[in-house]
Amino acid sequence: MNFADRLISGIRAKNSVVCVGLDPRLDRMPLFLREKHVQAEGKTLEAVYHTFLEFNKGVIDAVADLVPAIKPQLAFYEVYGTAGLRAYEETCRYAHSKGLLVIADGKRNDIDSTAEAYAEAHLGHMDLFGEQVPAPFAADALTVNGYLGHDGILPFTKVCARDGKGIFVLVKTSNRSSGDLQDRMTVDEKISIAALMAHFVESWGSDEIGENGYSAVGAVVGATYPKELTSLRALMPNSFILIPGYGAQGGSAEDLRGAFDSDGLGAIVNNSRGVTYAYEKTGATAGGEDYAEAARDAVLKMNEAVNGVR
Amino acid sequence: MNFADRLISGIRAKNSVVCVGLDPRLDRMPLFLREKHVQAEGKTLEAVYHTFLEFNKGVIDAVADLVPAIKPQLAFYEVYGTAGLRAYEETCRYAHSKGLLVIADGKRNDIDSTAEAYAEAHLGHMDLFGEQVPAPFAADALTVNGYLGHDGILPFTKVCARDGKGIFVLVKTSNRSSGDLQDRMTVDEKISIAALMAHFVESWGSDEIGENGYSAVGAVVGATYPKELTSLRALMPNSFILIPGYGAQGGSAEDLRGAFDSDGLGAIVNNSRGVTYAYEKTGATAGGEDYAEAARDAVLKMNEAVNGVR
Repeated sequence: MNFADRLISGIRAKNSVVCVGLDPRLDRMPLFLREKHVQAEGKTLEAVYHTFLEFNKGVIDAVADLVPAIKPQLAFYEVYGTAGLRAYEETCRYAHSKGLLVIADGKRNDIDSTAEAYAEAHLGHMDLFGEQVPAPFAADALTVNGYLGHDGILPFTKVCARDGKGIFVLVKTSNRSSGDLQDRMTVDEKISIAALMAHFVESWGSDEIGENGYSAVGAVVGATYPKELTSLRALMPNSFILIPGYGAQGGSAEDLRGAFDSDGLGAIVNNSRGVTYAYEKTGATAGGEDYAEAARDAVLKMNEAVNGVR
Repeated sequence: MNFADRLISGIRAKNSVVCVGLDPRLDRMPLFLREKHVQAEGKTLEAVYHTFLEFNKGVIDAVADLVPAIKPQLAFYEVYGTAGLRAYEETCRYAHSKGLLVIADGKRNDIDSTAEAYAEAHLGHMDLFGEQVPAPFAADALTVNGYLGHDGILPFTKVCARDGKGIFVLVKTSNRSSGDLQDRMTVDEKISIAALMAHFVESWGSDEIGENGYSAVGAVVGATYPKELTSLRALMPNSFILIPGYGAQGGSAEDLRGAFDSDGLGAIVNNSRGVTYAYEKTGATAGGEDYAEAARDAVLKMNEAVNGVR
């Protein structure tokens, strides 16, 4: 099944277009978890691994019946080398066991032969001395960067078609400086670079449109740019939009009105810090013991707010 | 010391502007290495780890006195999950122990707070329960993608300034489709996106120019585009250029003439497959036992060819 159809099936089952970002920062992990694992393992990478994994499992347990997908951000795991990435791999596996889709946020990109390696690494298979087996980090979808053009993306779409996976290409990112490059107008097309990238995205996905009208090639557009969200939605009728920037970065439910199609589909909205670190604001417990409950409450509220505008 | 100065010191010591790419593909590892480790560990990830690491160490031993730097491509290690990345980490450590600089080819990119995590992960430090210690994957330089603009790069330049590290920003990549986006002309500046990115690169590095006139912010420009290499060199007088695309991708020494400054500095030329898999062409041994020797021969030839045009 095409990735967009798998995602839509999850969206319908949970009545939610929310994606929970799992971006663990050690200094924001609940104190009781840090203390527990430092006591057992000392101030070591092993303790980081256990802290991240237990934290993520707690969040996943708390939100698995409420959302279709999680989005771990690879950067936060890579900081801790293979210890961090063991936590990453097991988080993905645990999310899958709970029926969640995993969108790996890695923004990978390279020339063709190397893009092929990234595609297999994060979505596909590895060659184990002649046998093709699922790659350890294989997720359901991956964010990618299209600066290298068509032949840097093709290896990803090939793996997507073969294995039912998806990609989300950066189009208009949520950060303040995204306009440095993305808002520049091109001479021939008289459109912005972001709009040009949107045309690329639409064409890269055009070979494989799923049952619900969406391809395996989606786009990333920040909630912090509601005007662009609306215009880019129109430019990419067959592309799902992954929307970061909700919550901590300033985007609100109101900003999402233009992101959905007439069926209320076509977009999934991520929230990382606003969910996972919601416990910091409750002040309910001294050591953050209520982090999972606070994450669940935050998702319930966000589901209601976002469903209200689609 | 600023990264460019460290790199130039290595270039002078070895009289070489060649960088050896370490992009292990299991099916191209010498047969005798694969057989040895499969015999010991079976067809397992552990055998992949040992095969990659022994292969890389052999190449490093063979070229350490001939070149200033190696460039491992993260994609090829990520395919094998944490097993591949253990080989990556130990390869970097081994290269450092042999006096080589490590340019991590990861083409990382993200919004500010996440770019900070990538910068620490690949160049800097991790927070280990309150203590700042070098990150397991910390290299000397990292390739990055500037599609997100200024605030996606700033976290990298901060770590560069603090820790004497460098970045190479994708400007004009070596692949055939790089023009899809990078050759588009912008309305206001009447220059290509690649040239615009070159201006960004020059400005991002302008705060920290080293003793030799180069900043910590370099650029990636493919040897496959010699005309652009010359014009981009002129646009970025203070930026070192990392040049992929030599050899297997089609670039020749002749194509590099425009890449260097009047002192024969300002660029470093990578070769991956042409060096590490040179043994495939010698046919000297049945199992590829001469791979390190063949790599050394290839580097000697490349040093001579490239030094001839700078």
